[in-house]
Amino acid sequence: MSEEIKDETLNEENESVEETTEEVEVEEVEEVIDEVAELKKLLSEMEDKYLRSHAEMQNIARRSREERETLVRYRSQDLAKKILPSLDNLERALAIPEMDENVRKGLEMVQESLNNALKEEGVIEISPKDEVFDPNEHQAIQSVPAADGVASDTVVEVFQKGYKLHERILRPAMVVVAS
Amino acid sequence: MSEEIKDETLNEENESVEETTEEVEVEEVEEVIDEVAELKKLLSEMEDKYLRSHAEMQNIARRSREERETLVRYRSQDLAKKILPSLDNLERALAIPEMDENVRKGLEMVQESLNNALKEEGVIEISPKDEVFDPNEHQAIQSVPAADGVASDTVVEVFQKGYKLHERILRPAMVVVAS
Repeated sequence: MSEEIKDETLNEENESVEETTEEVEVEEVEEVIDEVAELKKLLSEMEDKYLRSHAEMQNIARRSREERETLVRYRSQDLAKKILPSLDNLERALAIPEMDENVRKGLEMVQESLNNALKEEGVIEISPKDEVFDPNEHQAIQSVPAADGVASDTVVEVFQKGYKLHERILRPAMVVVAS
Repeated sequence: MSEEIKDETLNEENESVEETTEEVEVEEVEEVIDEVAELKKLLSEMEDKYLRSHAEMQNIARRSREERETLVRYRSQDLAKKILPSLDNLERALAIPEMDENVRKGLEMVQESLNNALKEEGVIEISPKDEVFDPNEHQAIQSVPAADGVASDTVVEVFQKGYKLHERILRPAMVVVAS
């Protein structure tokens, strides 16, 4: 075989390789490059979805914790409110002067145990005699001229005690205010 | 320009293209194919993360809803438990025979309003006289021989009423059982 012929054969082989390579570039490489772009877009979208879902999860967990704390803190609100009339009735019964000493003791025990139960659950009495009138906790049902030495806006009488559960008003105190 | 020279120039250009193409295939195409594989892996991992996070979010939301329902359902449990001794005291006071009629009426009002408050909150009395003894709700403090016509395991006397909040026992009834 002459050197020329050998070269030609090599050239033919090279041309065949060149054709295959050309095909890869034009069809497949462009396809693959498109796929990369598409995959990057999908990945970015999925990452967004994940981040949003993760943030939402943390929000739900936080809200649920706060809600639980509030529910626990004020859990006794409904029953406590419904018990207040019983306390009023007890006080009225104890105000009756002609009462057997045993009955009075029994009533005072009931009153004390009810008050203790409420106190343990966070219920606080509002009985603002001689305090400054506070429209957030007191309801003025009467106004009287201030006596000497009494500042105006002073609560001079409590008609009916109020109650709050922690800082939440169950019912305001009904009061008479000096004006 | 002769036909031959033109052909040679084209050949040179073709060779140059061939070299570039070779480079694209060997370095960049392999790189891009690796990138596709890597991106597919990342996308699949991110999708897993998203799905896990989404499932966890749904779990947290469901658990939190269940927990809230339980908290609301049994919210009055603590205060109700603490009020039961007051009801016992009231009953004992009302059992005193020599009592002023006004005082008795007052006490009965207190008792009724307490019972109503508890009932409205879902508290149910357990007072199983003549019922079959139920160890889930009753506590036997005494056993007596069954009288004629009384089946054994019958509650023949209730020493102290029990109470439940919905289906949850606040305290069992203290009873005497026929044996």
